[in-house]
Amino acid sequence: MSKVRKIIRQKNTEKIRKPPGTLIYIGKEKDTDISIDLLMYNAEKFEEKSILNNISDTKFPIEEYTSWVDIKGLHDEKLIEKVGKMTNIHALTLEDLLNTEQRPKIDFFHTYTYIVLQTLKYDEESHEIIPEQLSIILGENYVMTFLEKPSYDLNILKERIKNKIGKIRSYGADYLAYAILDIVIDDYYEIIEKLGDQIEAVEDALMFQTEKIEIQDIYVLKRKLLEFRKTIWPIREILTKLEKNDTQLIKEKTALYLRDLYDHNIQLIDNIDIYRDLVSGLADVYLTKSSNRLNEIMKILTILSSIFIPLTFIVGVYGMNFNNMPELEWEYGYFLILGLMLLIAFGMGIYFKRKKWL
Amino acid sequence: MSKVRKIIRQKNTEKIRKPPGTLIYIGKEKDTDISIDLLMYNAEKFEEKSILNNISDTKFPIEEYTSWVDIKGLHDEKLIEKVGKMTNIHALTLEDLLNTEQRPKIDFFHTYTYIVLQTLKYDEESHEIIPEQLSIILGENYVMTFLEKPSYDLNILKERIKNKIGKIRSYGADYLAYAILDIVIDDYYEIIEKLGDQIEAVEDALMFQTEKIEIQDIYVLKRKLLEFRKTIWPIREILTKLEKNDTQLIKEKTALYLRDLYDHNIQLIDNIDIYRDLVSGLADVYLTKSSNRLNEIMKILTILSSIFIPLTFIVGVYGMNFNNMPELEWEYGYFLILGLMLLIAFGMGIYFKRKKWL
Amino acid sequence: MSKVRKIIRQKNTEKIRKPPGTLIYIGKEKDTDISIDLLMYNAEKFEEKSILNNISDTKFPIEEYTSWVDIKGLHDEKLIEKVGKMTNIHALTLEDLLNTEQRPKIDFFHTYTYIVLQTLKYDEESHEIIPEQLSIILGENYVMTFLEKPSYDLNILKERIKNKIGKIRSYGADYLAYAILDIVIDDYYEIIEKLGDQIEAVEDALMFQTEKIEIQDIYVLKRKLLEFRKTIWPIREILTKLEKNDTQLIKEKTALYLRDLYDHNIQLIDNIDIYRDLVSGLADVYLTKSSNRLNEIMKILTILSSIFIPLTFIVGVYGMNFNNMPELEWEYGYFLILGLMLLIAFGMGIYFKRKKWL
Amino acid sequence: MSKVRKIIRQKNTEKIRKPPGTLIYIGKEKDTDISIDLLMYNAEKFEEKSILNNISDTKFPIEEYTSWVDIKGLHDEKLIEKVGKMTNIHALTLEDLLNTEQRPKIDFFHTYTYIVLQTLKYDEESHEIIPEQLSIILGENYVMTFLEKPSYDLNILKERIKNKIGKIRSYGADYLAYAILDIVIDDYYEIIEKLGDQIEAVEDALMFQTEKIEIQDIYVLKRKLLEFRKTIWPIREILTKLEKNDTQLIKEKTALYLRDLYDHNIQLIDNIDIYRDLVSGLADVYLTKSSNRLNEIMKILTILSSIFIPLTFIVGVYGMNFNNMPELEWEYGYFLILGLMLLIAFGMGIYFKRKKWL
Amino acid sequence: MSKVRKIIRQKNTEKIRKPPGTLIYIGKEKDTDISIDLLMYNAEKFEEKSILNNISDTKFPIEEYTSWVDIKGLHDEKLIEKVGKMTNIHALTLEDLLNTEQRPKIDFFHTYTYIVLQTLKYDEESHEIIPEQLSIILGENYVMTFLEKPSYDLNILKERIKNKIGKIRSYGADYLAYAILDIVIDDYYEIIEKLGDQIEAVEDALMFQTEKIEIQDIYVLKRKLLEFRKTIWPIREILTKLEKNDTQLIKEKTALYLRDLYDHNIQLIDNIDIYRDLVSGLADVYLTKSSNRLNEIMKILTILSSIFIPLTFIVGVYGMNFNNMPELEWEYGYFLILGLMLLIAFGMGIYFKRKKWL
Repeated sequence: MSKVRKIIRQKNTEKIRKPPGTLIYIGKEKDTDISIDLLMYNAEKFEEKSILNNISDTKFPIEEYTSWVDIKGLHDEKLIEKVGKMTNIHALTLEDLLNTEQRPKIDFFHTYTYIVLQTLKYDEESHEIIPEQLSIILGENYVMTFLEKPSYDLNILKERIKNKIGKIRSYGADYLAYAILDIVIDDYYEIIEKLGDQIEAVEDALMFQTEKIEIQDIYVLKRKLLEFRKTIWPIREILTKLEKNDTQLIKEKTALYLRDLYDHNIQLIDNIDIYRDLVSGLADVYLTKSSNRLNEIMKILTILSSIFIPLTFIVGVYGMNFNNMPELEWEYGYFLILGLMLLIAFGMGIYFKRKKWL
Repeated sequence: MSKVRKIIRQKNTEKIRKPPGTLIYIGKEKDTDISIDLLMYNAEKFEEKSILNNISDTKFPIEEYTSWVDIKGLHDEKLIEKVGKMTNIHALTLEDLLNTEQRPKIDFFHTYTYIVLQTLKYDEESHEIIPEQLSIILGENYVMTFLEKPSYDLNILKERIKNKIGKIRSYGADYLAYAILDIVIDDYYEIIEKLGDQIEAVEDALMFQTEKIEIQDIYVLKRKLLEFRKTIWPIREILTKLEKNDTQLIKEKTALYLRDLYDHNIQLIDNIDIYRDLVSGLADVYLTKSSNRLNEIMKILTILSSIFIPLTFIVGVYGMNFNNMPELEWEYGYFLILGLMLLIAFGMGIYFKRKKWL
Repeated sequence: MSKVRKIIRQKNTEKIRKPPGTLIYIGKEKDTDISIDLLMYNAEKFEEKSILNNISDTKFPIEEYTSWVDIKGLHDEKLIEKVGKMTNIHALTLEDLLNTEQRPKIDFFHTYTYIVLQTLKYDEESHEIIPEQLSIILGENYVMTFLEKPSYDLNILKERIKNKIGKIRSYGADYLAYAILDIVIDDYYEIIEKLGDQIEAVEDALMFQTEKIEIQDIYVLKRKLLEFRKTIWPIREILTKLEKNDTQLIKEKTALYLRDLYDHNIQLIDNIDIYRDLVSGLADVYLTKSSNRLNEIMKILTILSSIFIPLTFIVGVYGMNFNNMPELEWEYGYFLILGLMLLIAFGMGIYFKRKKWL
Repeated sequence: MSKVRKIIRQKNTEKIRKPPGTLIYIGKEKDTDISIDLLMYNAEKFEEKSILNNISDTKFPIEEYTSWVDIKGLHDEKLIEKVGKMTNIHALTLEDLLNTEQRPKIDFFHTYTYIVLQTLKYDEESHEIIPEQLSIILGENYVMTFLEKPSYDLNILKERIKNKIGKIRSYGADYLAYAILDIVIDDYYEIIEKLGDQIEAVEDALMFQTEKIEIQDIYVLKRKLLEFRKTIWPIREILTKLEKNDTQLIKEKTALYLRDLYDHNIQLIDNIDIYRDLVSGLADVYLTKSSNRLNEIMKILTILSSIFIPLTFIVGVYGMNFNNMPELEWEYGYFLILGLMLLIAFGMGIYFKRKKWL
Repeated sequence: MSKVRKIIRQKNTEKIRKPPGTLIYIGKEKDTDISIDLLMYNAEKFEEKSILNNISDTKFPIEEYTSWVDIKGLHDEKLIEKVGKMTNIHALTLEDLLNTEQRPKIDFFHTYTYIVLQTLKYDEESHEIIPEQLSIILGENYVMTFLEKPSYDLNILKERIKNKIGKIRSYGADYLAYAILDIVIDDYYEIIEKLGDQIEAVEDALMFQTEKIEIQDIYVLKRKLLEFRKTIWPIREILTKLEKNDTQLIKEKTALYLRDLYDHNIQLIDNIDIYRDLVSGLADVYLTKSSNRLNEIMKILTILSSIFIPLTFIVGVYGMNFNNMPELEWEYGYFLILGLMLLIAFGMGIYFKRKKWL
C-alpha cells in the first residue's frame, strides 16, 4: 500500500455500488490463522476455550458469566456470518467489521453497542505507524473483539482476568470493554513518544547542525501526525457517547473510569496539536536557515568580488600596450601600484568590518 | 465553461432579477434525449414502463406500490411543468430542478422532501471532475429523480430492484431514496482515490525527483479539492436533517442506514481535509526545494569565483608592462607563480571542504 | 473617498459624541432630486402617485391595500423626519436611515421591522464595486424603502406589480419585502461573476504567461472579496431572524421563499470563501514563480561564469610577461591552449547537462 | 512603560500573592488632582457640586433624582475606600477599580452592576494609542464613574444633562450609563479612522513607491490592531450580558439603545478584522516586492556579466604573448575582433530581449 | 529530561498496559524529604502540627474546624495509600496524584472534588519554565494539597491563616481552595512578564539591530508560549465547572471570588494569544529582514560589478597584442582612455543614483 493511501483508509473500490450489507473482507491478511477464543468468568470462576470449530453449538452468552469472544483473522466471510448469528449482529455491523479501513466510531443497536478503533503499533524498522482495526461489540454481559491478524494482541488482559489482577473479575462486561479501550489508548502513548523523539531529533539537527535533515523529513513528520490525529480524534466522541448514552450498558462504577480515559485522550490530542505547531515552526526555521545560508554564501562572494574586481581592473590598466604610459617608465611604478592595491584591499576590509560582514 | 466558473456553480445570469418561480433551464444539455421511466414494485410485483408520452394520464403514485419516476433530460420546461403537476410539486422546487448549478440542500414541503445533490464522475482524459445535478423528490410512497443527461445513471439500482438483490424490494420509498444517496456517495470514493493518486504522484516527483512538476500542478490539485469539498460538505447537513426531521417519511429501519451513510460522508470530509493539509505541505516543500536549489547554484558560482578571481588577479599583475618588475626577470618566476596559484587554489578547496560546501 | 475608506463604511466622524437619535445625513449625494412615490395595490386594484409635496396629508397605510413608499434622496433631514411621522418610526431608525454607511442588520420594533442592506453595482470603468445603502421598513401591510441616489432602482419590481407578473399582487407586504431582498441578492450574482472573471484572468496570466500581472492586482482582488463578504455575511443572520421571529409579519407562504433566499445567500458566501482560498493560492503561485525566475536567472549567470572564469584565467596566464615562459616559445602553443580551452568549455557543458541545467 | 508591556495590561507584580481584596493603586498617575463631583437631576431639576471634602456626609443616592458621582484620580486608596462605603461597594470591585490594567468586563452584584472599560485616545505626536481605564458602577438610580487622570473627560455629557439636550433628563440611570458607553465607543471610531489612514499610507507607499516603508511599520500597525481588538472585543459580551441580565436595572426603552450600541461594536470588530487581513496582505506584498527587487537586481548583473564576460575572455586571448599567433599579424585583425565582439554583444542583447529581460 | 519532552507531560511509559488504579510515582524527586502538615482553624482557633508519623491515628477532618493537610514529597507510594484511606480517596485519584505529568483537570467524586494543576516557576539561570504538579482535594470542610518537592510552597497562605490576614479565617474550606488557586494563578503573571520581557528583547534586537538574534530564539519563545498556554487553558474549564457544579461545596460568597479568578485566567489566555501573534509577526519580520539583507548584499555586488566589468573589458582591449592598433600609437591615447573610463564610471554612478540604489 502506498504512503498516502495508508493515511486515507477508505472504502475499498471493490465495494463501490454494491448493495449495503454485502459482506466483503477488504484487507490483505488472507493467510493468517483464524482463532476464536471464548473466555467466561465471574468473581469466582474462570474458563477459556477455543470455539473455532463449534461456533453454532456454543451456548453464548451465559447469564451468570461475563463472556469474551476474541476473534482473530477476518478473511473467512462465512465464518464471520456464523459468528454474527450467535448474538444477532446486524448486517451493517458485520459489513463494518470486515471493512477494515473504518474511521473510529460508535453505533448503538438494540441489543449491543458497536465500537470500531484503529490500534497502532510503531514499526522500528520502517519507522512507520502500523494501524490495525479492532472492532468491539459490547452486549449485556458479553464482549466480542475482532482483529485482522495476530500481531496485535490483548493477551495481557487475559492474564489479568486469569490471575485476578486488579478489579476486572469483580466488574462486568462494561469494565472489560473499558479495559480493552484502556490498553488501546495506552499504546498510543508509545506512538506519541516515538514522534516526540523524531521531532526532537529534527530540532537538534536544525539548532546544532548535528546532522543534515531535508525538508521531506519535516513533511513526513507532519503526515504522521495527521495520520495519528485522524485515528484518535473520533475516540473523544466515542467515549462521550458511550458514557452519556441512555442504554444501561455502562454502570456508574465504570463511567468513572471512562471519564479518566477521556482525559487521557484529550491529553493525547493536545499533545498532537502542540507537536503540529512545533513541526510547522520547525519548517519555518528550516526555510529561514536556508535563506540565511544563502546570505552567507552571497556575502563571501560579494566580499571577494568587491576586493578583487577593482584590483583586477588596475592591473588591467597597466597591462595596456599604449606607447605613451608615463607610469610604466617610473622606476618604482610597479611597487607604487602594488602599494596602492594593498591600500584598496585594506580599505575594503575595513568597510566590510564596519558592515559587520567579517 | 472556464475552469474557475466550473467550481462556482452559480445562479445563471439570465435569471437575475426574474420573478421567483420562473422556470428556466440554465444547463448546456439541450440536445439529449428525454426519457421518463416509471418503476413500480413491492415485495411481490415489479413493473417498469416509459411514461414520456402519457404523463398526464398516468395514475401515480399507486398506494400498494413503491413508485420511482426517473427523468433524464431537463431542457423541455413545459414537460417538467407537467411532471410537477403529477404530484403537486411547488414552483420553487421546479425552479431549483432546472437551475442545475445548485448547492446541495434539502427542503421540506408538506407532501414531499426535496434533495438536490451534485454527482461526480472523473473524466480520465481531461483529468477533470465532471459534476451533474441529481434532484430527488421523496414522497410518502414514491421517489422522483431528475438528471440532466444520460451520462450518469442509476441502472445498477434498477437491476437490484428487478432482480430482488438486497433488501430493496421489501423496504419502502425511504430506503429507495437512501439507496440512491448511497450510490452517489459511493461514487465519491472513486474521486477521492483519483485525487489521492495525483497527490502521491506529486509527492513522489518532489521527493525522488522522478519527474518535473510545476507549482501550477499543486495549485490545480488544491482547486479540485476545494471543488470536491464544496460538493460533499452540505451532504452532512442533508443527512442529519433527513434523519432528524419530524416528518414520518423516514422509518426507523432506514434511519440506521442513513447514519451509516453519514459516517461515510464524515470519512470523506476528513480525508479531503487531510489531503488539503498534505497539498499545502507539498507547496511548502516545493518552495523550500526551489530555494535550496538556488543555494546550490550560488554555491557553485561562489566556489568557482572564489578560486579563480584571486588567481586571475595574480596573472593580471604579471601581465603589467612596468619597466621595472624584478619578478619577471627571475629565471623560475613563472613557475614560482604557478606554484603559488596552485597553493591558493588548494587552500580555497580546503576552506570550502571545512565549510561543508564540497 | 479613498480606497481603504470605501471598504470600511464607518460612523461618520461628524457624528462622534453627538447625542443618540440626532438626524445627520452623512452621505455625499446632496444634489440629487428627491422623489417619494406611493404605490398601493391589491389583487384587483393598483395605484401609483408621487406624494413628495403632501406627505403629511397622505393617508397611509390604508387597510385594504398593500402600500409601498419608495423614497430616493436622503439629504433633506426635515423631510425624512416628516416621513418618520407618517408611521411612527423610532428616532434610532431615522438616524440609521441617514447614516448611509451601516453594516447590514435587522431591528425589530413594535409596529415594524427595520432592515438595512448595502446594494452593490459593478462599475465597468473604474472596476470598483459601488455600494449604496437600501433601508427597508416592513410594517403590517406596508413597506417603505429608502435609497440615497436614483442610480440603484427597483423599477423592475414596480413593473411586476403594475403588470401582475408573478404572484406579487396576490401576496401581501411580507412578499413585497422578500421580492426587494431577492432583487438585491440577485444583483450580488453579477458582482461574483465579475470577480470570478478577474480571478480567472489572473490565473491565466500566471499559468500561461499571457500578460504581466503584479502582486498588487492579487492584493486588490483580495480586498474586493473582503469588501463583498462584509456586505453579504450579515444577510445570513437577517434572513434567519426575519423568518424565525415571533412577530406575525412573515406569513407561512412567504417563509418558504425566504428559506430559498437564505440558500442563495449561503451559496454566495461559499463561493466568496472559495474565491478567497483561490486568491491566496494565486499569491503563493506568484511568489513561487518569482522565486523560480530568480533561479533561472542565476542559472544563466552561473553557467556563463563557470565556463568563462577559468578560461579567462588561462588566457591571463599566457598574458604574463615573464622572461622565461617556455610555452610561449612553442610553435603551436597558442593552438594547444585554444584547444585546451575548448575542452574545458565542452567539459563544463557536459557537467551542466548532467545537472539538468541545460 | 515599554511597547509590548503597553499592549499587555496585566496584574501588577506588586500585587502577586497578596490576599484578594487588597486595595493597591497600580497606575502611574500619583500627582493628578483628585476631584469628586456629584450631579443630581431629574426631568425638572438639576444640581452639580463637588463632594471631595464631605463624602461621608453626603446623602446619596436620593430617591427622586438620578445621581452621577464622577471621580477623577485614583491614587488615594483611603479616599476610594470612603467612596466605596457610600453605596456598599464590594471589596473586589474596589480592588478592580484601582487595578487600572483590567480587561473590559461586567460583574453583577446584588445592588449594582460593575462595568470596566478601556477608553482610547490617539496621541498625534507619538502616534500611539493611549488607553485609560473607566470604571462604571450602575445602581438603581445612580451611576458612579472612576477615571485615573483628567485627560479623558465626559464633560460633553454633563453639558447635555445641564442643557437638556436629547432625552437624557427624562430617562433614568440606565440611560445615563448607556450614554457614557456610547461616548466611549464613539471615540473608538476616531482610533479606527487613524489606523485606516495609516494602512492607506502604507498601501500607497507600497503600490506607488511614494515613500520608503519598512517591514517594522507593518508590524507596528499589526500590533496596534491587536491592542485595539483586545480592548473592544470583550465589550460585545458586556453589552449582551447587560441587556440580557435579569436584574431590573435596564429598562425596555434603554435596551433598544444598547442593541444599537451592540451593532456599532460589531461593526468596529468587523472593521478591525478586515484591517488585520489587509495588513497581513500588505506584509505579503512587501515580501513579494522585496523578492521582485532582488530579481531585478540580479537581472541587471546577469545581463551585464553575460555580455562582458565573453568579451573580456576574447580580449584576454589576444593579450597572450605567444610567439606564434597569426591573427595578431593580420592587418585588420584588431578591427575584425572589435567587429566580432560587437556582434556578440548585439546577439546577447537580442537574446535577452526575447527573454523579455530588457 | 529533553526539551520537547518537557512540554509534553505524558503518561509515563512504565505505566503503559498496567491495570488502572495501579499506584506508581513517575516523577524524578525520589530523595526529597517527605512532610505532612495538618492545619486546623476556625475564626477563633488555629493549630498546626506534623502528622507524618501518625497518619492512621489522626482524627480528620474534625467538624468544627476547617482542616488543611499539606503533603510534600510523593515518592513513598505506601504512605500516599495511607493518606488516601484517611478520607476515602478513590484509587483513580491516588493514581492521578502520583502521575505527576497530568493535564490540569477537575473530577467530581461523591465526597470530594479533585483538582490537579501545574504550578510554574521561572528559572532565572536556564531561562526555562519549571512546572510542578499541585493536586488539591476539596472536601466538605477540609482541603488536601499534594506537591512533589518542597521548591514550590504555599507558606504565604499559612502565614495569612496564622495571622488572620484577610478573610480566610472566617470563610470555610471552599475559600481556602480558592486562595490556593489564586496563588497559583498569581504566579503565572510572573511567567507572562518574563515572556513579555523576552519578546521585547527580540523586538528591540530586530528593530534597532542592538544585538544579533537567531531564528531559534524566536522558535524557542514560541515553544514556551505553547507550553504556557497548555498549562493555563484547561483552568478555564476547571473554574467554570467548579462554580457551576451542583455540589454544595462552593458557597455563594466564594463563587464571587472564583468568577474574579476566572477573569484573571481569561486575561492570561488573551495575553498569551496576543504574544503568540506577536511572535509569529516577529518571525515574519526576521525573514523579511534577512531577505532585505540579501538584497543589500546583491546591490553592492551588482553596483561594483556593473562599474568595473565594462572598464576591465576596455583595459583588456588595449592589452591586446595586435600589430596594427592605431589607438596605441596616439600620443594621448592612454589619457583619452582613462578619461573615457572615468566617464563610464560616472555615468553608471548616475544611473544607480536614479534607481535609488546609492
